[in-house]
Amino acid sequence: MRKRVPISVSQPYTVVIGTGLLAELPDHIANTEIVVLGDTNTAPFQERVAAAFTAAGRRVTTVQVAPGEDSKTIATWERVLLELSHAGVSRQAALLAVGGGVVGDLGGFVAATYLRGIAFYQVPTSILAMVDSSVGGKTGVNLPTGKNLVGAFWQPRGVYADLTVLHTLPEHEFQAGTAELFKAGLLADYDLATALLRTWHSQAEPHVLADYLARGIAVKANVVAADTFETGSRAYLNLGHTVAHALEAAMQHTIAHGVAVAYGLVFSAALGKSRGWFDYTDLAKEFVSWLGVTHTLPPFTELEPFIDRDKKAGPHGRTYVLLQEKEHPILVHDVTHAEELLAYEALQEVAS
Amino acid sequence: MRKRVPISVSQPYTVVIGTGLLAELPDHIANTEIVVLGDTNTAPFQERVAAAFTAAGRRVTTVQVAPGEDSKTIATWERVLLELSHAGVSRQAALLAVGGGVVGDLGGFVAATYLRGIAFYQVPTSILAMVDSSVGGKTGVNLPTGKNLVGAFWQPRGVYADLTVLHTLPEHEFQAGTAELFKAGLLADYDLATALLRTWHSQAEPHVLADYLARGIAVKANVVAADTFETGSRAYLNLGHTVAHALEAAMQHTIAHGVAVAYGLVFSAALGKSRGWFDYTDLAKEFVSWLGVTHTLPPFTELEPFIDRDKKAGPHGRTYVLLQEKEHPILVHDVTHAEELLAYEALQEVAS
Repeated sequence: MRKRVPISVSQPYTVVIGTGLLAELPDHIANTEIVVLGDTNTAPFQERVAAAFTAAGRRVTTVQVAPGEDSKTIATWERVLLELSHAGVSRQAALLAVGGGVVGDLGGFVAATYLRGIAFYQVPTSILAMVDSSVGGKTGVNLPTGKNLVGAFWQPRGVYADLTVLHTLPEHEFQAGTAELFKAGLLADYDLATALLRTWHSQAEPHVLADYLARGIAVKANVVAADTFETGSRAYLNLGHTVAHALEAAMQHTIAHGVAVAYGLVFSAALGKSRGWFDYTDLAKEFVSWLGVTHTLPPFTELEPFIDRDKKAGPHGRTYVLLQEKEHPILVHDVTHAEELLAYEALQEVAS
Repeated sequence: MRKRVPISVSQPYTVVIGTGLLAELPDHIANTEIVVLGDTNTAPFQERVAAAFTAAGRRVTTVQVAPGEDSKTIATWERVLLELSHAGVSRQAALLAVGGGVVGDLGGFVAATYLRGIAFYQVPTSILAMVDSSVGGKTGVNLPTGKNLVGAFWQPRGVYADLTVLHTLPEHEFQAGTAELFKAGLLADYDLATALLRTWHSQAEPHVLADYLARGIAVKANVVAADTFETGSRAYLNLGHTVAHALEAAMQHTIAHGVAVAYGLVFSAALGKSRGWFDYTDLAKEFVSWLGVTHTLPPFTELEPFIDRDKKAGPHGRTYVLLQEKEHPILVHDVTHAEELLAYEALQEVAS
């Protein structure tokens, strides 16, 4: 069983979703030199991929980084570049990021910059990476001043999402990753958002998982195709993310990205509702309940410096994505401080 | 007097050559936020540019780095990124690299990666930067393992070459920078290569300087337009550069880039001559004499590790650009060690 989602960027590629893809990768990727990058948490998957390419007679270089957001730094990126250089990796090599979002973002930035760019493939091992990071071409690392402040747009040549890796995910990670799928549904496939809460779980039939993943990826792919370099409508994908990123920064990354996104969606739902726009506050709250987490959130004043430093903050000051109508996102630049505080109170209540 | 060379890349732009351009830049660059990057050697030019934008009501951030190749590092790049971030520079900003090749390469890589890319303009203050670095979109920094091993392709929105800055260049730097112009002539405008030796000097009439610069830039622009991402014919621009880069590395950058290129051209001329191809050995030697420098070059064995690590070294091993016929470069992969040694002996004699 294979689902394919075509991605229409300047160099089109395909996201392939299915079971047992890891061992098949040498059939899909022809490069004679292969770099397999991953973190220690997903080492078994990297080993399976490396073994498949070695068996196929390819020259394989493996590079491992520590798991977690702390690896999304210039220091780690530099170390990986040096390892590739010392191993004599050439411009003909393909780099495969086997892992979650951090490995994908870091690996993509390595691929974008090593020898001014080598071929890049994503082999996502988390829901988040499958739905979010593997479409859009965004790569990068963090600065002390904020997340993803350094990076490049670098499209993968292909994305291979092997469903078998999901069986090994901890349930809470599986659920948190689902937040991006939920967000995609809210943006352009509302039925997906509601269906997720009913029938989505890690032990679901592969064809159900593949179908939902493909729908979420298709939403993102359509947005990205319309605006590859994020000059306009691509900002819609930040639904819930302005506050999510600020929460992560203010809470020093002690909160999972998916949970932060879920909270961010409650915030944006509350903002929209107070303006009389599309009301999805109940669904957003239901999703937080479904995640089964609670947090005592910091006061809004602690988030504000990070909101102001958000790279989407353009000449208009703070920008939020809100749903004016069902499946109809817009960018809003005139949210007042009073509106923000009210929406944040609603969020604090839901989170507690 | 203005010369304009159109550059046909995916986002076309123009190289403007003329006198008094620095003060006019606000008429050409509309961004309300301006970053002026330069090194301490060219501070007066940066100040003139910054003053012009400030007078035009723009928000100007200036960043200075130390002069020289030592600033083309990940550490300096990281420091510049942090300065921009701390200054709150947004995605709407334009970064202007006011300086020579190092500032252009470093500044381009900053622009390519800050917030995943901001607008970039080149304001070259050396011949080398005017002819070489400002066309092609190559940006990057060095690794301890070699030059330009990290970077990105990032096209400028415009290049403004103000001839008045050339009057302040030391004569030897002016001459050395001419090496790239000479190389461009050899590749596709042989009359330019011969004319240079006769009539090119820093006190020449502006229209002569502008004409020669425009011809050299046009050669490069044509090559780059045919092969933006250096997958094929763009490698021709490396005429003389395989050995030039190896010389620079083996001599720990105690040799000027332009001189290294002149030596590299003698080497490639000798290689081609020994095969009975186009013979420009006399012209290449004449150019070295014209530069008026001598060096005791290291033995060839000290260059070889760097030649092998050259990022153009593909699956074919060592690659050299040779002129098979006049203005007809080809890539040669089968140069023997005996041929290399013979050509290097010829070069050592010329250099001594």
